[in-house]
Amino acid sequence: MGREALTCASTGNTATSVAGFCAAAGIPAYIFVPQGAPAAKVAQLLAYGGTVFAVEGGYQAAQALCQLAREKFGWYDRSDGANPINAEGKKTGALEIWEQLEGELPDYVLVSVGDGSIISGVCKGFWELTQVGLAERMPKVYGVQAEGAPAVAEAFRRFQAGEPWLPAEGPADTLADSIRVGKPQDVVKAVKYVARTGGGFVTVGDREMVAAAQALAREVGVFAEPAAAAAYAGLLKLLREEEIPSGAKVVVVITGSGLKDPHGVLQGLPEPTVIPPELAALESALAGG
Amino acid sequence: MGREALTCASTGNTATSVAGFCAAAGIPAYIFVPQGAPAAKVAQLLAYGGTVFAVEGGYQAAQALCQLAREKFGWYDRSDGANPINAEGKKTGALEIWEQLEGELPDYVLVSVGDGSIISGVCKGFWELTQVGLAERMPKVYGVQAEGAPAVAEAFRRFQAGEPWLPAEGPADTLADSIRVGKPQDVVKAVKYVARTGGGFVTVGDREMVAAAQALAREVGVFAEPAAAAAYAGLLKLLREEEIPSGAKVVVVITGSGLKDPHGVLQGLPEPTVIPPELAALESALAGG
Repeated sequence: MGREALTCASTGNTATSVAGFCAAAGIPAYIFVPQGAPAAKVAQLLAYGGTVFAVEGGYQAAQALCQLAREKFGWYDRSDGANPINAEGKKTGALEIWEQLEGELPDYVLVSVGDGSIISGVCKGFWELTQVGLAERMPKVYGVQAEGAPAVAEAFRRFQAGEPWLPAEGPADTLADSIRVGKPQDVVKAVKYVARTGGGFVTVGDREMVAAAQALAREVGVFAEPAAAAAYAGLLKLLREEEIPSGAKVVVVITGSGLKDPHGVLQGLPEPTVIPPELAALESALAGG
Repeated sequence: MGREALTCASTGNTATSVAGFCAAAGIPAYIFVPQGAPAAKVAQLLAYGGTVFAVEGGYQAAQALCQLAREKFGWYDRSDGANPINAEGKKTGALEIWEQLEGELPDYVLVSVGDGSIISGVCKGFWELTQVGLAERMPKVYGVQAEGAPAVAEAFRRFQAGEPWLPAEGPADTLADSIRVGKPQDVVKAVKYVARTGGGFVTVGDREMVAAAQALAREVGVFAEPAAAAAYAGLLKLLREEEIPSGAKVVVVITGSGLKDPHGVLQGLPEPTVIPPELAALESALAGG
């Protein structure tokens, strides 16, 4: 496309991809993150040689400045909601689910939702599978948002009720930085696509996400950041509410590694036991623990 | 094998695998790490529900206590050097290189070395490929160690010189925790296998590793922890010394993500620029940067 630099506004994960691919391609990346983005995420951006601006005022402010900058400087903008090609990448998540399950799609798919980009792409992928005859029906796709940042879930509720549904800027208060979005950029696609699958939205609290992240790690060995584990917390809630029946075939999409936000996952876990290198000390620790 | 629990002593990466697979398998993991192991690595162990002991006295003390514990409690020990099946897993690294290069093995392979387990397995894999007729010759395999923890490299030098070569406990002083090993557990296999490939050993300093980690991230978009980037630092050194000719086909094995030790990779990199969400501030920052 002849562009000589990429830009994006991101809470962290998109920016990491952009900076990494720009490094591999040998072109500059101009990244706008909210001030206070997790150190591990910013570390990667800097290591990849990205030019990183920590924007005062949160994610919306970072988005707004990114839009001004792309128009001023001609940078190619990969931000969620700003780029129609985005969904073509995200939809491959649905194609991978189809492929890995050997064409047997699940009954339900759960995806954490911030801007609504991933879930839009995933729904698009399932939709296209039905259109080309590779699947008979779509899974019901559910988006999971933070209780403190529920803009897409609330827009969906209004959409289903036949009310005016496009959101104004709403609250964005959750420890899960990857889905801490007050003004979702892909809300239109997310709401309409999820409705088309027959799915819905659910919100979960920060404690539920952390508990879900710990359960995923402890029970199945999957180490997810809290924002990613929100999808699993949403499944647990929908099972409790019997919106998803026990025994259904469900895929939970995990969208970020716990290494990106280890402090979030670790809340309330025990510290390691420090011992001298002596068997008696170990036996004592085991007995006491 | 009828064992009901796993154990290992590890500087972090092995322990993470053990704890994660134990979580998936639903059996307990008893992990011995050196006191001071990086927080991100310990975070994963705790999240996976492992029982973690931070042993005073460093990695050797952790190894010694692990050995006492496995005999006392009957735990299955996955530690480097303690388990002959280990190399059967590590050798798949060589098979993957063969597979991904469609049977065209490189001229050289570089691997960071702490205990010597990974390089032993990788050499074993190449050796077996020649024995079953899938490769005509092995790549020359080079091990890369930290200047401050060079036990295997020095043993190799003595081995090649026909001197008594088995190491006593040596120094273990490097920021690269994954290869901070004073008494390598797989030194015999590592030395003999590397000799069989016609390769060798090289040591690099901490600054070279950090510079290599930053170069890998910035130039090709691979974010490695310093211990893993040591392999690339070793390549640069061997190219400078003309032990590896320019134009050779080389594979550098990257054995740990930079997310596991972001502080190590970040040394000396700039901080993000904090700006208000205004184009004028951005232009000013771009002009000043």
